Amino acid sequence: VPPNYVNMGLQTAKTRQKMFRHLMDQRKWPQEGWDDQTIEILVNEIASMDSNNFISKGGVGEREGRIYSNIVSRRHFGMAHGMGRSGDLAEAQPKAAGSSLLCTLTNALVLDLMHTFVCGKVVDAMVVPMATGMTISLCLQTMKEARPNAKWVIWLRIDQKSCLKAIQSAGLSPIVVEPKLVETSLVTDLEMIDSVIKERGTESILCVISTTSCFAPRDCDDVGGVAQLLKNTPIFHLVNNAYGIQSLACVRAIDRGCRMGRMDIVVMSTDKNLMVPVGGAIVAGYSKEIISQIQKSYPGRASSSQSLDVFITMLSMGVKGYKALITKRAENFLYLQLKLKSICMAHKLQMLLSKNNDLSTAISLGDLTRAVGVTEAEMPTFFTKLGSLLFFRNVQGARVIIPSQTQTIGQVELEGWGCHSPLYKLPYLTAASTLGMEKADVDFFIKKLDECLKMLKKPRTD
Amino acid sequence: VPPNYVNMGLQTAKTRQKMFRHLMDQRKWPQEGWDDQTIEILVNEIASMDSNNFISKGGVGEREGRIYSNIVSRRHFGMAHGMGRSGDLAEAQPKAAGSSLLCTLTNALVLDLMHTFVCGKVVDAMVVPMATGMTISLCLQTMKEARPNAKWVIWLRIDQKSCLKAIQSAGLSPIVVEPKLVETSLVTDLEMIDSVIKERGTESILCVISTTSCFAPRDCDDVGGVAQLLKNTPIFHLVNNAYGIQSLACVRAIDRGCRMGRMDIVVMSTDKNLMVPVGGAIVAGYSKEIISQIQKSYPGRASSSQSLDVFITMLSMGVKGYKALITKRAENFLYLQLKLKSICMAHKLQMLLSKNNDLSTAISLGDLTRAVGVTEAEMPTFFTKLGSLLFFRNVQGARVIIPSQTQTIGQVELEGWGCHSPLYKLPYLTAASTLGMEKADVDFFIKKLDECLKMLKKPRTD
Amino acid sequence: VPPNYVNMGLQTAKTRQKMFRHLMDQRKWPQEGWDDQTIEILVNEIASMDSNNFISKGGVGEREGRIYSNIVSRRHFGMAHGMGRSGDLAEAQPKAAGSSLLCTLTNALVLDLMHTFVCGKVVDAMVVPMATGMTISLCLQTMKEARPNAKWVIWLRIDQKSCLKAIQSAGLSPIVVEPKLVETSLVTDLEMIDSVIKERGTESILCVISTTSCFAPRDCDDVGGVAQLLKNTPIFHLVNNAYGIQSLACVRAIDRGCRMGRMDIVVMSTDKNLMVPVGGAIVAGYSKEIISQIQKSYPGRASSSQSLDVFITMLSMGVKGYKALITKRAENFLYLQLKLKSICMAHKLQMLLSKNNDLSTAISLGDLTRAVGVTEAEMPTFFTKLGSLLFFRNVQGARVIIPSQTQTIGQVELEGWGCHSPLYKLPYLTAASTLGMEKADVDFFIKKLDECLKMLKKPRTD
Amino acid sequence: VPPNYVNMGLQTAKTRQKMFRHLMDQRKWPQEGWDDQTIEILVNEIASMDSNNFISKGGVGEREGRIYSNIVSRRHFGMAHGMGRSGDLAEAQPKAAGSSLLCTLTNALVLDLMHTFVCGKVVDAMVVPMATGMTISLCLQTMKEARPNAKWVIWLRIDQKSCLKAIQSAGLSPIVVEPKLVETSLVTDLEMIDSVIKERGTESILCVISTTSCFAPRDCDDVGGVAQLLKNTPIFHLVNNAYGIQSLACVRAIDRGCRMGRMDIVVMSTDKNLMVPVGGAIVAGYSKEIISQIQKSYPGRASSSQSLDVFITMLSMGVKGYKALITKRAENFLYLQLKLKSICMAHKLQMLLSKNNDLSTAISLGDLTRAVGVTEAEMPTFFTKLGSLLFFRNVQGARVIIPSQTQTIGQVELEGWGCHSPLYKLPYLTAASTLGMEKADVDFFIKKLDECLKMLKKPRTD
Repeated sequence: VPPNYVNMGLQTAKTRQKMFRHLMDQRKWPQEGWDDQTIEILVNEIASMDSNNFISKGGVGEREGRIYSNIVSRRHFGMAHGMGRSGDLAEAQPKAAGSSLLCTLTNALVLDLMHTFVCGKVVDAMVVPMATGMTISLCLQTMKEARPNAKWVIWLRIDQKSCLKAIQSAGLSPIVVEPKLVETSLVTDLEMIDSVIKERGTESILCVISTTSCFAPRDCDDVGGVAQLLKNTPIFHLVNNAYGIQSLACVRAIDRGCRMGRMDIVVMSTDKNLMVPVGGAIVAGYSKEIISQIQKSYPGRASSSQSLDVFITMLSMGVKGYKALITKRAENFLYLQLKLKSICMAHKLQMLLSKNNDLSTAISLGDLTRAVGVTEAEMPTFFTKLGSLLFFRNVQGARVIIPSQTQTIGQVELEGWGCHSPLYKLPYLTAASTLGMEKADVDFFIKKLDECLKMLKKPRTD
Repeated sequence: VPPNYVNMGLQTAKTRQKMFRHLMDQRKWPQEGWDDQTIEILVNEIASMDSNNFISKGGVGEREGRIYSNIVSRRHFGMAHGMGRSGDLAEAQPKAAGSSLLCTLTNALVLDLMHTFVCGKVVDAMVVPMATGMTISLCLQTMKEARPNAKWVIWLRIDQKSCLKAIQSAGLSPIVVEPKLVETSLVTDLEMIDSVIKERGTESILCVISTTSCFAPRDCDDVGGVAQLLKNTPIFHLVNNAYGIQSLACVRAIDRGCRMGRMDIVVMSTDKNLMVPVGGAIVAGYSKEIISQIQKSYPGRASSSQSLDVFITMLSMGVKGYKALITKRAENFLYLQLKLKSICMAHKLQMLLSKNNDLSTAISLGDLTRAVGVTEAEMPTFFTKLGSLLFFRNVQGARVIIPSQTQTIGQVELEGWGCHSPLYKLPYLTAASTLGMEKADVDFFIKKLDECLKMLKKPRTD
Repeated sequence: VPPNYVNMGLQTAKTRQKMFRHLMDQRKWPQEGWDDQTIEILVNEIASMDSNNFISKGGVGEREGRIYSNIVSRRHFGMAHGMGRSGDLAEAQPKAAGSSLLCTLTNALVLDLMHTFVCGKVVDAMVVPMATGMTISLCLQTMKEARPNAKWVIWLRIDQKSCLKAIQSAGLSPIVVEPKLVETSLVTDLEMIDSVIKERGTESILCVISTTSCFAPRDCDDVGGVAQLLKNTPIFHLVNNAYGIQSLACVRAIDRGCRMGRMDIVVMSTDKNLMVPVGGAIVAGYSKEIISQIQKSYPGRASSSQSLDVFITMLSMGVKGYKALITKRAENFLYLQLKLKSICMAHKLQMLLSKNNDLSTAISLGDLTRAVGVTEAEMPTFFTKLGSLLFFRNVQGARVIIPSQTQTIGQVELEGWGCHSPLYKLPYLTAASTLGMEKADVDFFIKKLDECLKMLKKPRTD
Repeated sequence: VPPNYVNMGLQTAKTRQKMFRHLMDQRKWPQEGWDDQTIEILVNEIASMDSNNFISKGGVGEREGRIYSNIVSRRHFGMAHGMGRSGDLAEAQPKAAGSSLLCTLTNALVLDLMHTFVCGKVVDAMVVPMATGMTISLCLQTMKEARPNAKWVIWLRIDQKSCLKAIQSAGLSPIVVEPKLVETSLVTDLEMIDSVIKERGTESILCVISTTSCFAPRDCDDVGGVAQLLKNTPIFHLVNNAYGIQSLACVRAIDRGCRMGRMDIVVMSTDKNLMVPVGGAIVAGYSKEIISQIQKSYPGRASSSQSLDVFITMLSMGVKGYKALITKRAENFLYLQLKLKSICMAHKLQMLLSKNNDLSTAISLGDLTRAVGVTEAEMPTFFTKLGSLLFFRNVQGARVIIPSQTQTIGQVELEGWGCHSPLYKLPYLTAASTLGMEKADVDFFIKKLDECLKMLKKPRTD
């Protein structure tokens, strides 16, 4: 093979090596996404730094990273040693330089993601190989070690079990602060938080958990207002920004928080924000210490599989690719609202507008009940049927909410479960536009929703 | 294509379908291992039951299982929804029948593994997508919910940080019970446990954690003795059987526990026992309720990646394959001891025999110090050098232990760190034989150890 | 897992099974492209029908389809038996019902491709696992068996070695018919063909090979005119439609051929028309017999790897996807011409327009020579440098053609090699727009071409 | 990540790079097999040298190596350009330095395979991406170009269609030389070859094709004797060593050929000798020129998929791994013979011993006919049934041969088709032991054969 051809070929190898070195040195999210072959070469090179992939070796320990199944080995590029050591999630492993490097780089990328898309004041960030619920629990445990006498966590109600259970599983007690109803939106009740703090005393309250991303008609919490209340108190402020990186409303709320008061930790889902399978969370901290404390309080080693997914995905997207996804999502949200408006027109229903929720939207189904002549007693069955009709037509993620349900989680009883508030008395339907959604999803949903509404409105022949 | 050829071909498809149905119906670990193609077909069929893999659909929720990267999607066979729901790790997901089925089947296989290889009295078992440390913490939290007034955990000392940190991260306080030195082995001090219980009172003690698999010269704990002490007390008994499935000594200890007294939970590592990457644990319970409580106390959803690894690996091994691995491991342990004996003869060192440890063995390095003329002050440097020489020769897992070190973890100070006891005054080296080890590993280790010992014994020329 | 969730999941499995059955029954190219998971499930199911993938078996033959390497096995989905039997490429293999089915289905898809995109009168078609050159050779050998006394093949000159070598390797002798120069295009010289036939006699001429897709300024051959000349003669007509499926001009020429006279075989490249790796060709025949004869005259078995690539790719594209690719290609051709025009304006060069070539376009570089003051003797070096400058800037596929070169292939001497004709006296550059090209390719090319032209025009400082 | 850990990790990367460089420089088959990860890293690095994998590029040619389907791209590691250029199969491609390098290296490995396992006097060798039949045809065409007046090919009869069809498809005429019956073996009739040559004259005879590997009771041809006859004649000698690399008998015959007379080309199957899928052949030449001529006479480009399979497989095996396979095969052949002897004892049948065939063995079924009372007229049906019974029990590769069948291939009529000779009058069954066979295959076969023979011997109840 003539040397000039080979040189041309090797130039690409050199370009790749430059990209790799740049990533190692700069630890920044590349602007342009990388192609799959480049990513696989890098991951394989990293993996080959783990001792179980060494060519000549002898293992006489209790965990030598031997993988039995070929299929499993391939899934993990031969990496077997996971993340961290028994003392610290962030500690490098002598046996697994590659896995250690992978996790370190992923955390660097995630920090850059925070700076570029969420908040420039974040100081450190990491991928935790547990979903948001368990991760919030870990954060709360770490906080508790710092303030062992504070037993209460103020929880701004959002009707999703994980967060409340996270508080309980951390051995803490929640104080539920219900949202206020302003027009058709449910918004943060700052006065109530303030009065709870005053009543119980700052020393007894460990943390306030506010939530940004949520289903309409609940609004993104007033993170700024909460942060301001916590200024100069010892109370931690944890923001559950579950799928909020993609939302301008959520990101703005966090930004206001930084400017106005106390912010400690923001927790985000990797699957919902980065389009990877469920299983990881991003923890972003406003001090190096708090992230380091979390890493140290985690007992033992952990999976690096979630970091691998995030690493591959972020390199594949690049900053530009991610921006494009966010833009498309915002467009699809407008398109979804537009289409729902036309459904509302056709079926004489009402949109439930939320000022501060650009992810999810809702339509009231109250008029439908009246139109069809469903009694209050029949309502649950009637709306369960609507949900079921949609589900069996492969519409996913649309939720039909029936008011006046009650749910008990641990010791806490929540009235109006599903609506985030007992004040919400209307049955309604929510739908969201999130990363990766296509216009075709909206069209499919709207078509099926129209069909289902027509079916429901047919006079009953029984 | 002639129909008789096609029929021959379809027969295999039918055989596979029969194997699949048998697995679904019986939920037992197949005797014979499956080939990779069969496993991949099954996993793909299961994955295609998840809604994100449906061909016609519309997703308007906040988590639609969209995977951005092709590489990531392929790693997970397109499964994105993880395990469980916000209320319960064991709950099936409406959007993800496939992932739910996968996790359910994996738990059934793991229960069968328990029955076949560990203990027939186990009632329920599951794969938790966190490594043993964090899993033990989760178990303790669940126990604490049942007995909120019990604050203490009796921990039978083993010098590995995870378990101790797990106790602390569950918000509990450890009581360290040191082992007794009997000849050269460190064994369970039942009298001390008994006196601690009497002193503090059963009501204040939540749990005793005993450990089976460990490094020599520590022995497998006397699980039976501990279980007997806890009989008729409210104190939970959790056995940390980290990598003990492969060890007859550990399995027998657990079996004695069942016969003699109280057993609640056994925790095991998936990576060390099943040759998958780090990141999961098996929790086996002696009642349905305790497993169910753990599943319910886990906040939120979790990764199904660990279950997938276990599922694939167990089908690939089959019961017979696993038996063969265990037999080979036991043979290699004898081979390792034999070879170490010859090293001891050659270098005039002593084996440190443990009666009840068939995983790990140790040799005293005390005579080496004397032979070379190393002072007590020089000892740490001298033995650190031995560890380092071995490490840089790609010997993995052999540990050189220097006595009289102290380590503080949380509030707990442990003297003689590394030796599991302040009573152990000899420097020593440990090596283990675990699943998947080859004779070549032993040969490599012995050759390099011999080299390193010779280097160390050379008269210093400086 | 609740049965209604499972049923939802199984619905997709059923949908897939319906798609598979539809494909088997109808043997038509699906309108909509299939997703990768669906394709892989089908290919795995087909592969599992091959006897080497049977679960229980005993092989005592000389070829049992055993694959040594895991990587290789995976590349082929475990299929090892290739295509055909020693007697016939189209024959089904008793040991390999799956592979046989795969090849049969692929041929059916390819026939449908012919009907939908090339010519409705094609009667049979197949994928031959050799590239176009060797495939044309095979076709000619088959024809020769039918007419053993005919020794000559009339070859409408196109400056690419394969076709000419194919004639020679089939043991036949070419008669080169040069194209005519009409304005700036090179077009078929029908009169010359006619006079050659008359001179040598129809009995001595085996075949005429016309070529559709080619580089400008050569035009697509007048297939209709040639077909008309061959009407009522025993002379076979083979059309080399190498990458012409994507071109309206080529397809129209073939269609005219069918209406006006004799057509026997059309040969096409799989890589250039279907975006798969090099290695296969499509042979389309205007009678069942001729395809069957080709299959029978092929000695021995052959690789099914090319059929697998085509099968996967066609299912992935669907008819709609392929239409979209063709439309985009046509748009990019216009865009390429537009951009080249602007380059010509800027550098005072001339476009060389071809009436009947919608794949490739050319610009004359004659004026450049004059502008820079390059003598005729310096021309080859000068233009070689242009080619080389482009090549080392990663511009691929642009060719710089220098007139008055001579090339001897076998016994045949071709003057003006590279230009398809000794009549073409201008140096020129060609570029093409083919399937899968992106606008970015055009932009990259134009930018680099501009740079290179500027460099060449710089006054020489030596 | 601490630098000393990283350095340890990079050491493996360096080891790999050394292995790669050693392979490039030495071009020898490594003694030790490589692990899959190492192989994949190398193949990916090679693939990334192809221009279609460049990160920044613009393609304006007709073949830019664009691959549509992700699945297809992955199968080929992104390599799309195949092998060779229109002028020469061995020529490097400017656009595809990687693919060119891959093919060059593979040919070097294959040459080393020849030297190590077949014959030290081979001068050049290559992988041809066509199975043996078509490859023999290509060799004959190339020979014919050198000696256009020689029309005849002497073919030492073996009853397998490919080789005979290869002669015909090369436009040549076969002279069939039947084997002699010596005891129960069919052996080369040297006198007949000699008299044919004398009769027709050396000038008119292009080539003699001898065959080594074959089914008993045909023996490996006397390659030495044939070579001696051809010494000092212009007649080429092509040895069809289809699956003979694994056989000591075949290799010895070739070696004798080299020492005793004229040898030109040896053709071997890649699938049968190297356990890859069907589709390639190895051509080994006793002069540089003949291999070079074959490469030059091949019209156009070709698939590199077969070379890739061979490359991966040979690296995976290493010389040692291949030796082990060959040893195991020889052992299994003895085991097969042993087991067949016991079947013969049990069913009162005769072994048909061949002196010079260590691949395949046969047993006479004549006594069976007598035992069951089958008339000559019923024989075909009776033995077809035996074949079919075995086939439907998943016994593959065992052949039941019925004497006195006739087959016409092209112009040639062969009496006693299947037996390699009209002299063989006994029905018989053959079985072989080839690379990759397991003892379990033999056991399965013997068990099923025993069953089938018992079934056949049951008194008919109809």
